Amino acid sequence: MPTPEDLLDQTVSVIEPLDAEAMRAARERQAGLTKPAGALGVLEDLSVQWAGIHAACPPPYPEELAVVVFAGDHGVVAQGVTPWPQEVTTAMVENFRAGGAAVNVLTAEAGGDVVVVDIGVAGDIKEDEVVWSRKVRRGTADLSLGAAMTRDEAVLAISAGVQVALDLIDQGYDVLATGDMGIGNTTASACLVAALTGRSAAEVTGRGTGVDDATLELKTRIVEAAVGRLASDTDGIAVVAEVGGLEHAGLAGLILGAASRRVPVVLDGLIAGAAALVAQRLSATSIDYCIAGHRSVEPGHRAALEALGLRPLIDLDLRLGEGSGAALAFPIVRSAVAVLRDMATFESAQIESGDQS
Amino acid sequence: MPTPEDLLDQTVSVIEPLDAEAMRAARERQAGLTKPAGALGVLEDLSVQWAGIHAACPPPYPEELAVVVFAGDHGVVAQGVTPWPQEVTTAMVENFRAGGAAVNVLTAEAGGDVVVVDIGVAGDIKEDEVVWSRKVRRGTADLSLGAAMTRDEAVLAISAGVQVALDLIDQGYDVLATGDMGIGNTTASACLVAALTGRSAAEVTGRGTGVDDATLELKTRIVEAAVGRLASDTDGIAVVAEVGGLEHAGLAGLILGAASRRVPVVLDGLIAGAAALVAQRLSATSIDYCIAGHRSVEPGHRAALEALGLRPLIDLDLRLGEGSGAALAFPIVRSAVAVLRDMATFESAQIESGDQS
Repeated sequence: MPTPEDLLDQTVSVIEPLDAEAMRAARERQAGLTKPAGALGVLEDLSVQWAGIHAACPPPYPEELAVVVFAGDHGVVAQGVTPWPQEVTTAMVENFRAGGAAVNVLTAEAGGDVVVVDIGVAGDIKEDEVVWSRKVRRGTADLSLGAAMTRDEAVLAISAGVQVALDLIDQGYDVLATGDMGIGNTTASACLVAALTGRSAAEVTGRGTGVDDATLELKTRIVEAAVGRLASDTDGIAVVAEVGGLEHAGLAGLILGAASRRVPVVLDGLIAGAAALVAQRLSATSIDYCIAGHRSVEPGHRAALEALGLRPLIDLDLRLGEGSGAALAFPIVRSAVAVLRDMATFESAQIESGDQS
Repeated sequence: MPTPEDLLDQTVSVIEPLDAEAMRAARERQAGLTKPAGALGVLEDLSVQWAGIHAACPPPYPEELAVVVFAGDHGVVAQGVTPWPQEVTTAMVENFRAGGAAVNVLTAEAGGDVVVVDIGVAGDIKEDEVVWSRKVRRGTADLSLGAAMTRDEAVLAISAGVQVALDLIDQGYDVLATGDMGIGNTTASACLVAALTGRSAAEVTGRGTGVDDATLELKTRIVEAAVGRLASDTDGIAVVAEVGGLEHAGLAGLILGAASRRVPVVLDGLIAGAAALVAQRLSATSIDYCIAGHRSVEPGHRAALEALGLRPLIDLDLRLGEGSGAALAFPIVRSAVAVLRDMATFESAQIESGDQS
């Protein structure tokens, strides 16, 4: 077994750019399909990215989706940044296991499977086929008082995420989506977005699951102070260790692991965006394998998407997390690939093209 | 058999408002599901509308989708408003029949069936199970020179659309989506949107399948002049007769027919929006049964959606028509209903709610 550091270094070192030749072929194929050039907008761009990810045109149709929900707790809840008690993280993991949460319903609709990874829940979580135990520690330390975790713990959590991706791909999943659960994790996400985009705490801190004005003010002050402790040249691992969450570290690893195997990742909302910013620091190329499922109402998510250069597929005022937005968007991804693979060409349908372009 | 006028009058007279009691029950049910209140944004509103449409909570899950593509030709193509020859309408109907068009691929992804209605194609179209012959005339007259069709023809086309909806519902379809095909139909759509929203021709005329600047200018002048012929108190039927298309009339009928049976309709882009404005004039309540699948890049579609009071589910720069945006959005509709039906409640999952609201 490689050490966590070695696994991470090795993973990052094998991430390759998208295949330019397959992307060129996909653009050419799109131009010959029976529709005006560009008339399917973002679907066409998405199909070209998919071809580049798989280095093939036509690229393979996505067959097996896993929505991977990393669950962890946050010491900062002691400051009162959320009305929800910490025990809800554990209770929701049980809800995921039982199939009753939004992510279960939406993933079933998308034809995928939910996998939950206990990367750092404070409570005891039983392991089974649905819930994988990869606990690095029982929740982070309170990031308002000092580092959320040690650098070694951050590396361990990122590497665990890499290994989860590799294991799922070995099991036959050919597309991964990010999910998350952790009471208090919008506070850590806001810290990561502020630290990694240079935006102010006020710009990127939001109401999460629905806090009132006074709590939003408190949350913003905590984010500002925590990010203020970071030196400007802090690396991605140190940033997630100081002000992040275990699920952010795990998700960053998931993205890197998937990219290292040329497997696409559909991102959910704010927490995924913050985690992708961490992955971007470790491998900017890894983001080429990512598709933004949706845009959350959280202001930090907008900032993260801009820094990642990703356009969301869905923008319907969701603010739930769990992977709900990624699962909801997955049929659009599948449709985009199907168009490139299955539509008739002007030639095959014997139709005269009227394109002026 | 009732006359076309009688069928239309009878249909409009039985359209009822959404069921307020079912909507109240749906809102209450949403509040008890294992998520923060409102965290699924537009999905929650959609599930409440669905309950109101079906007068039931939980409402039925959508099982059988038909994407109904009304095809017709437009005399105004003689003015050079599009680079595509009129024969492409006929050729695309054959492409729909063969299953090679974007709407076929996207509808298959959505788990639905494509039904094509020849409501006024200029060329000869063979009838079979997929393509229904309801031809009112071989294309409209040139709307830049005079009325596109007679009032009787408009009534006949609307009634044909009503009957198509009733027949599909009798066959077991429980959700309809609108599609369209007709070279030149963005010009007629812009006329309808301008006439029925009061916007200027310049505001609502767009590039359709991709015309150049000179053609856009010509198209805008034609729209302005045609709409200028209408008196301000012209009724919906007269507007579609003077400046509309046969597929607009058919689609307006489809919406009315579906609403009269409490069956929801997922709208596609500009052409659907223009047709829905006609339906709105005949029965404002019919729009409560409509869901906007997407927002097209066509400026007239934005204006139509605003006048209809509908928020689109998808906004991905599509400008194809055919029903592509409606089919693409359908999985979101299904997901919204599934959430309301299938999610666990705080009570059933024994989770403490942290909602402050």
